[in-house]
Amino acid sequence: MSNVDYPRMFDYTAGYTDQYQLAMAQVYFLKGRKDERAVFDYFFRKLPFEGGYAVFAGLEDLLDALEILHFDDQDLDFLEQQGLDPRFVEYLRTFRFRGDLYSSVEGDIVFAARPVLQVEGTLIETQIIETLLLNILNFQTLIATKASRMRWAAGDRTLVDFGLRRAQGPGGYYASRAAIIGGFDATSNVRAGRDYGIPVSGTMAHSFVQSYEDEITAFRHFAEERPDDCVFLVDTYDTLRSGLPNAITVAKEMENRGQSLKGIRLDSGDLAWLAAKSRKMLDDSQLPYVRIAASNQLNEHVIRSLLEQKAPIDLFGVGTSLVIGEPDGALDGVYKLVFASGKPRIKLSENIGKITIPHRKQVYRIINGDGAWVGADAVALSGEENFSAIHHPFQPQKSFSVEGFGREPLLEKVMEGGKRCVARRSTQDIARHCRERLGKLPAEYRRFEFPHIYKVGLSDGLKRERDRMIDGLREGAR
Amino acid sequence: MSNVDYPRMFDYTAGYTDQYQLAMAQVYFLKGRKDERAVFDYFFRKLPFEGGYAVFAGLEDLLDALEILHFDDQDLDFLEQQGLDPRFVEYLRTFRFRGDLYSSVEGDIVFAARPVLQVEGTLIETQIIETLLLNILNFQTLIATKASRMRWAAGDRTLVDFGLRRAQGPGGYYASRAAIIGGFDATSNVRAGRDYGIPVSGTMAHSFVQSYEDEITAFRHFAEERPDDCVFLVDTYDTLRSGLPNAITVAKEMENRGQSLKGIRLDSGDLAWLAAKSRKMLDDSQLPYVRIAASNQLNEHVIRSLLEQKAPIDLFGVGTSLVIGEPDGALDGVYKLVFASGKPRIKLSENIGKITIPHRKQVYRIINGDGAWVGADAVALSGEENFSAIHHPFQPQKSFSVEGFGREPLLEKVMEGGKRCVARRSTQDIARHCRERLGKLPAEYRRFEFPHIYKVGLSDGLKRERDRMIDGLREGAR
Repeated sequence: MSNVDYPRMFDYTAGYTDQYQLAMAQVYFLKGRKDERAVFDYFFRKLPFEGGYAVFAGLEDLLDALEILHFDDQDLDFLEQQGLDPRFVEYLRTFRFRGDLYSSVEGDIVFAARPVLQVEGTLIETQIIETLLLNILNFQTLIATKASRMRWAAGDRTLVDFGLRRAQGPGGYYASRAAIIGGFDATSNVRAGRDYGIPVSGTMAHSFVQSYEDEITAFRHFAEERPDDCVFLVDTYDTLRSGLPNAITVAKEMENRGQSLKGIRLDSGDLAWLAAKSRKMLDDSQLPYVRIAASNQLNEHVIRSLLEQKAPIDLFGVGTSLVIGEPDGALDGVYKLVFASGKPRIKLSENIGKITIPHRKQVYRIINGDGAWVGADAVALSGEENFSAIHHPFQPQKSFSVEGFGREPLLEKVMEGGKRCVARRSTQDIARHCRERLGKLPAEYRRFEFPHIYKVGLSDGLKRERDRMIDGLREGAR
Repeated sequence: MSNVDYPRMFDYTAGYTDQYQLAMAQVYFLKGRKDERAVFDYFFRKLPFEGGYAVFAGLEDLLDALEILHFDDQDLDFLEQQGLDPRFVEYLRTFRFRGDLYSSVEGDIVFAARPVLQVEGTLIETQIIETLLLNILNFQTLIATKASRMRWAAGDRTLVDFGLRRAQGPGGYYASRAAIIGGFDATSNVRAGRDYGIPVSGTMAHSFVQSYEDEITAFRHFAEERPDDCVFLVDTYDTLRSGLPNAITVAKEMENRGQSLKGIRLDSGDLAWLAAKSRKMLDDSQLPYVRIAASNQLNEHVIRSLLEQKAPIDLFGVGTSLVIGEPDGALDGVYKLVFASGKPRIKLSENIGKITIPHRKQVYRIINGDGAWVGADAVALSGEENFSAIHHPFQPQKSFSVEGFGREPLLEKVMEGGKRCVARRSTQDIARHCRERLGKLPAEYRRFEFPHIYKVGLSDGLKRERDRMIDGLREGAR
């Protein structure tokens, strides 16, 4: 692995890209365009999970990867075998990303159709990093958003990520991180805990119980060796007739030794019913402090339903649906050219929603005097201060006056010349930031069914400029 | 990275596991059970995509990871900080996986409810590797299966994986490999191409066209510098009024230089209609050799529909739906204890389908005299030769006589004492094997709607043994 002072799970090289990036870059290089500059916007068109917001995540990992990105010898040999021009391969030998990034703060609440991040650099370098950037940001943003929905459903109950085994391969490593950003308390994923400094947690598996001749011996052994972190899985044979009675017996034995059983875990059956029954059995045995954990195919809707039923569950262990971002599975984030070689750029489309928005930009959150969010973000030309309204990007009749409101700029420079120019932030710090920002998002944007639509609009100047370019191109086509 | 003779994208350490594996392992260790042996089955309960089969993938990557798996210093420091017993952490310092694996051949066609792979080793080592094993095999099997469905839909058209940007982070690396195993021809993913020796391919992006003052100059530059691998993306401004005419002009210029345009790519709009119009325009210009590539939200159903409409598309570029295994997103593969400390093990469940099947096993594919598949796999006790029928695992009234048929054993020993005991196989070899095996699977199991149900049954001996254990446990519970 590269020579860095923090652990890296992934050996990203610049070869972690789509082949066409290199094909295009070679043409730029051979045509003498290697120093021409470009600006790309990263944004997505549709909020995930039919929700009202998204949680931006993945930035720190992207910056880590970009700072040391290069083609290693195996990449270069491979590209030469693939028939890339030897002069271009030679150029790639010393390739480093030296561009600038302007980004939303990781953990911030972001919306569709506005730049979440902007990249500026040479045509070649901005193109080569596209795939890596999308690969990291799309996925972590998806999972942080999913996690924040589960947090919303779970209230103050403990949420633990159990998903690594069902994750999309090593994507699970990022999922554990993004889960914490979105509001989870801990993960079962030891490696992610180690590398990202996030709490790890776990109980026991059925195999542990099965490996003993009887359940109670399994519980006793576990209690004897892990008295401070002891949660019994109670459904290996029969939850209420075997698991609970055995757990209660061992809990009492622990009390006699001055220890306390931390909890039991339910992993099958009707969780609401079993939790209620279990709670009663524990309480009847004077074990009110023993917590109840539940797992098995949970998602934000099941969690909400369980709590609506007043299921006395203290901890939810969530696997598949969290780490794969069910049901969406992907965020449709894209990376679009908005400026190149001194000129704004636009892409037309028969689908009006796919027309891109040209120019370098700043995004502002519109706020009240007391800092409360009004429910609108303005996308403005970089440097444009004097706009008085924002306009729906594709429906000209819709606009919204922003006069009298405050504006919080959302994109900050995080990388300059290929080097971080802001301090590294811990995953826990980012999670705290997310919690703060979510606290400012009114509940109507968080609800699962038909959430309120947060406004994203173009500033007066940007809209004028965008419309002028569309007209110009259509004129030209005639 | 570790000292190995082939590239590794992922720095797996033994800390890439769930915390509870280590909690349980510590109890085994401190209770003097560290040398007790266990056998685990890897299997899944439900075929993905409501399909009739799955393609087993991920084995080579798993073996690579297991051969060098160990806790590195950072893992060990972290585990000590987490409060693991220092004696156990010391034991982990020299931990290596020294177990045996019996596996289906990678690329074979596999079905639900039967062991796809069996792991034998100490209780501790078999438990620690569970998470890694599930994480790799579940995902690659999901994606190889998805890819094989797209291959079925696409017939002999070219299929290229374009998915890395929408993949679940670095899961995309495995997705590109699994796509090839399931029948794809190439990937856009350069790094996967390099490491797995699979063909890479790509065209151009909208940004390339946008970076020029006009589309035709973009096409000309590309043609001049990449004449041998030249595919124009034609929908940046207007597919039929701008993209196609410009592509045709440049194709003719290429002809004058003795070169041939390879293709055009459609990436938006009605692909069936645009492909037909484009084909006609190309043919009318005496460019019958120029191929048509299509991309944009494809999946097996869209591909099938396009070909049913006789869309003259030669190449499909597939992204999101392939690499995230839409709509399932995860295979429900599990890892269950079936033998420990000299005795068979079973887990009961209120859900009868979740009762596990005890004992070491062999799986046989039932075949005709000519080697044709009959449509049934037998799960037998290891060493049990004389069974005459197979029995539905959970419906006692259903059985199927296998007398007179041949039997092909499906699990082979692939790892002994932690070392591979079979030759490493290339991804292309595995893909060939998959193609061969899929060729033996009758079409009724491949179709998308209500596929024929492949039989998986327990041998006479295994069923007897399983039923005896269930009765014994229920007896004990009374």
